[in-house]
Amino acid sequence: MGRLTASRRVTRITLDGANRQRPDAVAVEEPLEIRVAGSPLAVTMRTPGHDVELAAGFLVSEGVISRGEDFARAIHCGGPGTGGADGNTYNVLDLTLAPGMALPSPDIARSFYTTSSCGVCGTASIEAVEKVSTYDVSTDPLSVSPHEVAAFPDRLREQQKTFDKTGGLHGAALFDAATGELLVAREDVGRHNAVDKVVGWALLNDRLPLRDTVLQVSGRVSFELVQKAVMAGIPMLSAVSAPSSLAIELAERAGLTLAAFVRGNSMNLYTRADRVRVPEAPASTTPSAEKMTSVR
Amino acid sequence: MGRLTASRRVTRITLDGANRQRPDAVAVEEPLEIRVAGSPLAVTMRTPGHDVELAAGFLVSEGVISRGEDFARAIHCGGPGTGGADGNTYNVLDLTLAPGMALPSPDIARSFYTTSSCGVCGTASIEAVEKVSTYDVSTDPLSVSPHEVAAFPDRLREQQKTFDKTGGLHGAALFDAATGELLVAREDVGRHNAVDKVVGWALLNDRLPLRDTVLQVSGRVSFELVQKAVMAGIPMLSAVSAPSSLAIELAERAGLTLAAFVRGNSMNLYTRADRVRVPEAPASTTPSAEKMTSVR
Repeated sequence: MGRLTASRRVTRITLDGANRQRPDAVAVEEPLEIRVAGSPLAVTMRTPGHDVELAAGFLVSEGVISRGEDFARAIHCGGPGTGGADGNTYNVLDLTLAPGMALPSPDIARSFYTTSSCGVCGTASIEAVEKVSTYDVSTDPLSVSPHEVAAFPDRLREQQKTFDKTGGLHGAALFDAATGELLVAREDVGRHNAVDKVVGWALLNDRLPLRDTVLQVSGRVSFELVQKAVMAGIPMLSAVSAPSSLAIELAERAGLTLAAFVRGNSMNLYTRADRVRVPEAPASTTPSAEKMTSVR
Repeated sequence: MGRLTASRRVTRITLDGANRQRPDAVAVEEPLEIRVAGSPLAVTMRTPGHDVELAAGFLVSEGVISRGEDFARAIHCGGPGTGGADGNTYNVLDLTLAPGMALPSPDIARSFYTTSSCGVCGTASIEAVEKVSTYDVSTDPLSVSPHEVAAFPDRLREQQKTFDKTGGLHGAALFDAATGELLVAREDVGRHNAVDKVVGWALLNDRLPLRDTVLQVSGRVSFELVQKAVMAGIPMLSAVSAPSSLAIELAERAGLTLAAFVRGNSMNLYTRADRVRVPEAPASTTPSAEKMTSVR
């Protein structure tokens, strides 16, 4: 478990002339080098803590592993001259895959963006995810009520202890759709890392694919976040902020339910809205003049 | 100029039972492959538009070029089988450097995180920036009033036309400290990209190093954003949200003024607060019981 926050001296200025110096809690950011069988694979800037989950989840997102049994062990390690008082030994993590597992290509992160089929374009990126993904989220029978979904952001926020102190961390949480239980919540300076930590937690606990779950994130939805959900077999992604065009396209193609702008008592469903049960209108309410369309 | 927004059909649900389908404007996200002299260097997910600025700014951030004269030209290009109706020809950009410029290492992005001096750690990342940077921002005589700084976030926001439509884009803007003029503002789904576009604009307009300017960003401040400012010779970075620990450490070491939580009529100064002129307290105000300390 690493340090999540650090204290820094700050000068607080207000325009009415009040200035004072005070200590301020900030989110810790440090590089983590992920190695597989001793070979460096990626470096990510992350908030220390849950590093093994982060690395395991990264490998799931990139299609290297997809089940708990694919993963053997991880050790924090340092090369010659590392380690010691500055603790940097904890910034290199070496993963060992199960015997027989193929080692990842050193060029792995590029594989989702560039394929020979059409050079570099959004369609090629989507096809690469389809090709590599082990799980099919389109057939997941998930069904949630909009009231459940509307409560997820606050339930995630309750778990974001470091955000409350620093305002600087993204959060991701996984909910069991059948029971409503919050399974795990993680924080990180990088929103991709927070999701990788959640997915890695699931892999290490032998819970992949994550059928009948909803992944709630604190920010926006990019292509990569939808990719991570699809690769882990998560059928629904819910976000507080906006989705990108390519995030919606991948969700559409993969059959993932994408909810965004989940705020207060409303939400936007961009794909597979059939999994969110239509709320019943109160009998006393007169339909407005606006065109009303049933969800299904 | 690419498409910044796309229209997607969305099901809007509110808990009182109102559901309707409507078109929604979303921020466009597409991959861009950056090549130098024909060799692929990086792929980034970005919002199309200002691609040459983005690529040029990326090369400045990574220490490949540092002046307008280092850059010769850029062409959007496609390999065999690309281009045509889906427009993916515009997702590959090939840059040509000036004669005699060293070509970047294919492993360039890793060089800021891993050096032989101490394995992988924050200190090594900071030392890598120091080693590669052409400009020294610590000696820049920038001096701004807190009233000017407090106005930057709203002035950036006024330029964020796409954000207003989609809620999905990060913004970055450059201000001339002497005149207060807004020099350029750019938007992107990625906050790093928005800053690269601003820096690339400056390089293409022969304005590097960006002495006596302030870079305003719409979100949080990571190590990489401070790195980009330092590499472009920008002496002050101002952000609406929180900084990370490593962002503050790099700013401290480089002598860059870092302002964050710049909201309403207050701000936090984490480093080099001497460049922000102390506001004068109204004569009628009685100092509070809290310890008050002059900025310098």
